[in-house]
Amino acid sequence: MKAHVYVTLKTSVLDPQGQTIHNALRKIGFSDVAAVRQGKYFALSLADGLDQQTARTQVERIAKEVLTNPVIEEFTYRIDE
Amino acid sequence: MKAHVYVTLKTSVLDPQGQTIHNALRKIGFSDVAAVRQGKYFALSLADGLDQQTARTQVERIAKEVLTNPVIEEFTYRIDE
Repeated sequence: MKAHVYVTLKTSVLDPQGQTIHNALRKIGFSDVAAVRQGKYFALSLADGLDQQTARTQVERIAKEVLTNPVIEEFTYRIDE
Repeated sequence: MKAHVYVTLKTSVLDPQGQTIHNALRKIGFSDVAAVRQGKYFALSLADGLDQQTARTQVERIAKEVLTNPVIEEFTYRIDE
């Protein structure tokens, strides 16, 4: 079973890295991009035979306690069936 | 319209950062995680009124030419309807 965790900066937090990418894209002609935000992505392979409910609880705890800095970041996750 | 680009290391490329997270998770008791791979996530806000086909072409070019290092990385993307 595979879990995907996406960690992004809260919208209230400035994202200079995303801003830099945005500026670079405009400079080379991609003018249809209005904004860029950068985040992190984690792919977790989970032990076989783990039930869906336990997987959800575990991944949520991992995302919350280890992968995300709750002061400036938030997360979403998805578990492949 | 919003596009989401996920850049990951090719599976043949070692991921010491993911390995470190995996070790840390095991040490604090998350023994159901078999592997961790870390990647990057980019959220692109696209200009309003862009049609789906142009959006796809643009995002694919941006992902390929700017966001991904083709030697060691690969990407997937998703465009919100």
